Amino acid sequence: MKTAKGVLYVFSAPSGCGKGTVLAEVRKRMPELRYSVSATTRAPREGEVDGVHYYFVSRERFDELVETGGMLEHATFCGNSYGTPKEKVLEFLNNGIDVILEIETKGAMMVKESYPEAVTIFMLPPSIEELRRRLLNRHSETEEVIDGRVHEATREIAMAENYDYVFVNDVVSEAADTLYGIMQASKSLTKINKDLIKGVLEKC
Amino acid sequence: MKTAKGVLYVFSAPSGCGKGTVLAEVRKRMPELRYSVSATTRAPREGEVDGVHYYFVSRERFDELVETGGMLEHATFCGNSYGTPKEKVLEFLNNGIDVILEIETKGAMMVKESYPEAVTIFMLPPSIEELRRRLLNRHSETEEVIDGRVHEATREIAMAENYDYVFVNDVVSEAADTLYGIMQASKSLTKINKDLIKGVLEKC
Repeated sequence: MKTAKGVLYVFSAPSGCGKGTVLAEVRKRMPELRYSVSATTRAPREGEVDGVHYYFVSRERFDELVETGGMLEHATFCGNSYGTPKEKVLEFLNNGIDVILEIETKGAMMVKESYPEAVTIFMLPPSIEELRRRLLNRHSETEEVIDGRVHEATREIAMAENYDYVFVNDVVSEAADTLYGIMQASKSLTKINKDLIKGVLEKC
Repeated sequence: MKTAKGVLYVFSAPSGCGKGTVLAEVRKRMPELRYSVSATTRAPREGEVDGVHYYFVSRERFDELVETGGMLEHATFCGNSYGTPKEKVLEFLNNGIDVILEIETKGAMMVKESYPEAVTIFMLPPSIEELRRRLLNRHSETEEVIDGRVHEATREIAMAENYDYVFVNDVVSEAADTLYGIMQASKSLTKINKDLIKGVLEKC
């Protein structure tokens, strides 16, 4: 059942869990689903286009957005700030278009705070050991970096119980089926259908 | 994704909303789904079998079950008490078998209280007017009885916001698809997967 308003999905998974692969499968079945474009204070890299890869904004503009409640979530890494501007996302949602934010756990909790109707989904690795194996198989990082990622993953997984849904990525196609099913069924979650109940009662 | 433990579904809808028809469609796709057998203090009617249609129990036994926390929910109509004995339901759930309770809103809220992992689902009519039309089309009740049912439906719908999911039964086949989708996806609800998260963290 399609709700009048679009649904805001918040999707998190530890690095190395296969988030991109699973999401790519799901997006094929939901071509109308939109990603939000983040704002950042860092300088554009070669080939990056303003409004496509990021909105490149000044520190002043970024801080202003944060202070006036214009960011759904934001964080700072290595001195650069990143955030999800609220305005564009709300515009999509109000036009009945679903939006997905692929963000880490702290940001996800900030979105939940500022937009409680968001549907929050966390994807787990089958085990920490398997996550480490997947990271090692990339052959692109030192063992020290991988240790750091595993440590961070453990911290993130401990946050999973604050999400609406949680599932394991064991086999990619099955995980994509599960995620797609969750995204469809979550349109019937009561927390995003309070107006529907009111509407039925009013149409007397 | 199959959770180790069975899921307890609580399904409510106002009288005349088409609950039986929609549920029959869904049960075809979930043949392993179990209904719970209610206990009652009323005398068996002709053809009713103990343990199949109801568990027929004495008033003393019923009250004892209520007092010792042995009922998931219970209510009294016209001097007869009805309830859902906890033991059998928990036995199914512990064996990984899903159970559905088709009960009214007060009972549903009692189940939610005594078994918070229950997935609660409310089916709405498209409108109160349409519900009244459906009840009239049965040609089996006086207008006065129908007025009473509509009044009761309004009270029940006002309780819908306490459920996990809510959806409209407009076209039966679509409603069955929605309900089936909800029942599958709800297996990934975090509230019934806390052990899964713990398990991933422990398998280090």
